[in-house]
Amino acid sequence: LRALSSLFNSNITITDTSSAKSALEEILLEFKYPNNIVLSHPVAGSHLSGQENSLKGLFKNKEVILSYSQSVLSKHIEKVRNLWKSMNARISNLESNVHDYVFAHSSHLPHVVSYALLMTLKNLDQTDISKFSGGGLGEFLRLASSSSEMWADIFTLNKENIISAIDALEENLDILKFKINKDNQEIEALLLDLKNFKEENY
Amino acid sequence: LRALSSLFNSNITITDTSSAKSALEEILLEFKYPNNIVLSHPVAGSHLSGQENSLKGLFKNKEVILSYSQSVLSKHIEKVRNLWKSMNARISNLESNVHDYVFAHSSHLPHVVSYALLMTLKNLDQTDISKFSGGGLGEFLRLASSSSEMWADIFTLNKENIISAIDALEENLDILKFKINKDNQEIEALLLDLKNFKEENY
Repeated sequence: LRALSSLFNSNITITDTSSAKSALEEILLEFKYPNNIVLSHPVAGSHLSGQENSLKGLFKNKEVILSYSQSVLSKHIEKVRNLWKSMNARISNLESNVHDYVFAHSSHLPHVVSYALLMTLKNLDQTDISKFSGGGLGEFLRLASSSSEMWADIFTLNKENIISAIDALEENLDILKFKINKDNQEIEALLLDLKNFKEENY
Repeated sequence: LRALSSLFNSNITITDTSSAKSALEEILLEFKYPNNIVLSHPVAGSHLSGQENSLKGLFKNKEVILSYSQSVLSKHIEKVRNLWKSMNARISNLESNVHDYVFAHSSHLPHVVSYALLMTLKNLDQTDISKFSGGGLGEFLRLASSSSEMWADIFTLNKENIISAIDALEENLDILKFKINKDNQEIEALLLDLKNFKEENY
C-alpha cells in the first residue's frame, strides 16, 4: 500500500479486496487518510484462488463491505459502489474495526479451526481416518485448502481479534468438555439451545 | 440394549446403527457377548433425521463398519453383511475401541467444534454476523442442526475419546495462536504444510 503513495489524493480511485482492514487503515493514517481510497471486501469465493479459478457471476447477490474515512471524496465512493453494483453485488458499510471484529468470528476463526483439526488428525497414529469420515469433516477441512500465503497474511493483519476469538472458542470447548463429562441431560439441553439459536440466526 | 436380552443367543440376528460402539460392547460383555449381535455403523446421512428425511440410495457406495466379537456366529455376520450389501454399501471391519477412537476424531470432534463455534457467536454483542459470513461458516454450523438427543447420547457414550480429542485440538489451537502472534513466515510455513497434508490425505 505504501508503494502506491504517489497516487494518494489523486483523481485515480483506489480500492482493495482484503479480508482485514484495520492494519490497512493504520497505514492510511500515516498519510492522513488519502481522499481517494475506499476499502472493499467482497464476501465471495471458495478455497480456490488464481485467475484459472475465476467464475462468471461470482459476485452476484454477494455482500461487499465498504470501509472509508469521512474525508474520502464522494466521487471515489460512488465509483467503487458502481464497480460492485455492476457485478450485482449487495453493498454494506462497516467501519474497519467493526469489519475486522465481525470477520474474525465469521470467517477467520473457522479457518483457524480447520487448520487445528488438520493438525490433530496429522498427529494421530491411525492413518486411514479419511476412509471413515462423513461429509461434515470434508466441509471443515476444505477451508485449509485455501492459499497459505493469503491466510498467513490475514491471520497476521487481524491477529488481535483472531487471538481473542480463539480464546473464546477454547473457553466454550472447556464448557462442552465439562458438560459431556458430567451429565447427559445437561449436555442435551445445551445442544438443543444451540440448535435453536442456529436455526433462528444462521 | 438390555431390554432385548430375551433375544440374545437366539436365531434372530441383531444389529444397530450407532456411532459409538464400546459402551454397547460393555453391555454385551455383561451377557458374555451374545452370539447373534453384529454391531454396524453406516457412515451416511446428514444433519436431518426422522422418517420424513429418508433418501433413496442413501447407502450406495457409503462405508459401513461392522464390529463383532469372535464368538459371534458367522451366519449372523453374513446376514448383516448381506443387508448392507443389498443397499450397495461398502463394508469394513473395525474393533469397537478402534472404531470409537477413529470416529471421535473424524466425526464427533467436528460436531463438538460446530457447537463451540455457535456458543462463541451467541455470546457476541454483534448480532448481524450471519449477514457477513461466507460459505465456510455455514458448512461448519450445519452440523449443529443435527438431532440434539442423538448427539448428547453419542458424546456421553464416547466421552473418553472425545474429551482427549478436544484436549488435542486445544493444544493445536494454542500452537496456532502462538505462531500467529509471533511471525508471518512461520505461520505461513505451517499453513502450507497442513494444506499439503490435507491434499494428500483428505
